[in-house]
Amino acid sequence: MTTSTTRPKVLQLGEVFFAQKKWEELAKTAEVVECTSSNREEFFKDLKSKYSDITNIARTFQSIEQTGRFDAELASHLPESVKSISHCGAGYDQIDVDPFTEKGIQISNVTEPVEGPTALTAVFLCLSAMRNFQEGHDNLVRGEWPAKGKAGGAKLGHEPEGKTVGILGMGGIGRAIKERLLGFGFEKYIYHNRSKLSNELTAGSEYVSYDELLAQSDVLFISVPLNKNTHHLINADAFAKMKEGVVVINTARGPVIDEKQLYKELKSGKVGAFGSDVFEFEPEVPAELAQLPNVISLPHMGTHSSEAIRNLEEWVVENILAYISTAYVSI
Amino acid sequence: MTTSTTRPKVLQLGEVFFAQKKWEELAKTAEVVECTSSNREEFFKDLKSKYSDITNIARTFQSIEQTGRFDAELASHLPESVKSISHCGAGYDQIDVDPFTEKGIQISNVTEPVEGPTALTAVFLCLSAMRNFQEGHDNLVRGEWPAKGKAGGAKLGHEPEGKTVGILGMGGIGRAIKERLLGFGFEKYIYHNRSKLSNELTAGSEYVSYDELLAQSDVLFISVPLNKNTHHLINADAFAKMKEGVVVINTARGPVIDEKQLYKELKSGKVGAFGSDVFEFEPEVPAELAQLPNVISLPHMGTHSSEAIRNLEEWVVENILAYISTAYVSI
Repeated sequence: MTTSTTRPKVLQLGEVFFAQKKWEELAKTAEVVECTSSNREEFFKDLKSKYSDITNIARTFQSIEQTGRFDAELASHLPESVKSISHCGAGYDQIDVDPFTEKGIQISNVTEPVEGPTALTAVFLCLSAMRNFQEGHDNLVRGEWPAKGKAGGAKLGHEPEGKTVGILGMGGIGRAIKERLLGFGFEKYIYHNRSKLSNELTAGSEYVSYDELLAQSDVLFISVPLNKNTHHLINADAFAKMKEGVVVINTARGPVIDEKQLYKELKSGKVGAFGSDVFEFEPEVPAELAQLPNVISLPHMGTHSSEAIRNLEEWVVENILAYISTAYVSI
Repeated sequence: MTTSTTRPKVLQLGEVFFAQKKWEELAKTAEVVECTSSNREEFFKDLKSKYSDITNIARTFQSIEQTGRFDAELASHLPESVKSISHCGAGYDQIDVDPFTEKGIQISNVTEPVEGPTALTAVFLCLSAMRNFQEGHDNLVRGEWPAKGKAGGAKLGHEPEGKTVGILGMGGIGRAIKERLLGFGFEKYIYHNRSKLSNELTAGSEYVSYDELLAQSDVLFISVPLNKNTHHLINADAFAKMKEGVVVINTARGPVIDEKQLYKELKSGKVGAFGSDVFEFEPEVPAELAQLPNVISLPHMGTHSSEAIRNLEEWVVENILAYISTAYVSI
């Protein structure tokens, strides 16, 4: 690789909330251009004019409103000068990686900063779902305590004792969930992953097959990325293999679960409770699903905190800086 | 002690839900009498007639509706034959211990079975309060996502990183809270207790003075018993010593906090969020308090689970069996 003498030009797609300092640091080595295109058509036009010499792109989840998905069509409109795209999130569901890779563009996501906040969200959903806390809270606010009895009539919940936690997808988030749950006294922690991981990474949990995971879990955490292999992975067949009354927690992506089928399983009691931060057609959440007393729902809040957003934003700048320092300075 | 030849007679105050087997076991060595008195007056009358020869009492939290508080007056009505009272709960706030002790009656409570379930409840409240999950959930259910923006306009929450957890009262529940929090990556765990405890019990947390606890905590867990020394322990003076925006979690008893003052502190933002399973005048909860977006409230659900109630009920029978085997059989 030859050292380039051109000054890098970074296109900033989406708002920066907390990492201003870090962007100022980047501005010392690169020109930073804020994207002002208001829709996909305008974005494609701008790529041929004012953004025709950008070298790197930083994008946020929300910027999809300005550009639409990062797919083959979008890739075909990018100038040859673009070398890297840094996405401010963990999931690649807004990006089809292949068309960019084919053009030699490096794509990066945010890993570590997402893990703790998302895992915390998953544990919150798990505790709420197991113990029917949402139902109790709603009863209190509606003034049904004590009129309708203990906890305003909320169903008795369950404790971790004797229960098996199953984690589907033992990536960074899955492992962070496991680490946060270890103190709660569950009986057993099992996981399934494309491949068995080192004991160092999964300490305290046991690798099992996908079918065993479904069959043994009392609480099942979904923590796999969304792609064509995982779309509707949790369907009627999968539910049929689960325990009666299983608690299902989803902090991955909505479409990993067949939501229509899930609703049936919740109504029949096969699924005892469902805690979720994500929905198949979010932000649309079927009212009939959200209003079930055994569903605890959140509007995609996995990283909804000042610290999480700052860490995500800073990670993106670090990704760009790392790319620039490799491509433009070293070797 | 001489071995008694009389068969013990246990008065069962309040309903048994899950420990039927254990009570059947007790019925092999003792006569078990269900209390049918419907109010305090009737109870005092029955103590002079059909319960005049009872040797042990088992009571539940709910049975206060049949007998009123276990106080000096009630103690004066107990027959001389009563040797022990086993309370199916952790807190002695329904029992004035002294008048019973003076009569040579042994009083016992439930400790271990309460700890995990209550600590889990405290952690749930903490996660919810720090991350504004209740507000987000309410927004979703009201259909305000995405109309009112990200998370339907819920305030950005905070992560454990860099935060200090303070635990006031490092008994069994306080320690169980600490154990469950260790995996979440808080910066520091501190506690205050009447006396410093062994490092084995408090591993990972540091003993500090009461004032230091108030001053340093970003999240403060209240886990002290309610008695005349702790009534309104958390008052205007205490709040004044806390950090701006402190998160306060109460799974002890409502009257430990001056609730009227707390409301002011929440309105001013001095207290950033409040998560509570208990209220000063519960089951009455002031609507203005319950409806604040930064309050997450539960209707006293600390042990509201099948496993917790079964374990509590079984512990009570164990207490009676232990008393009986000591008093009636051994030595």
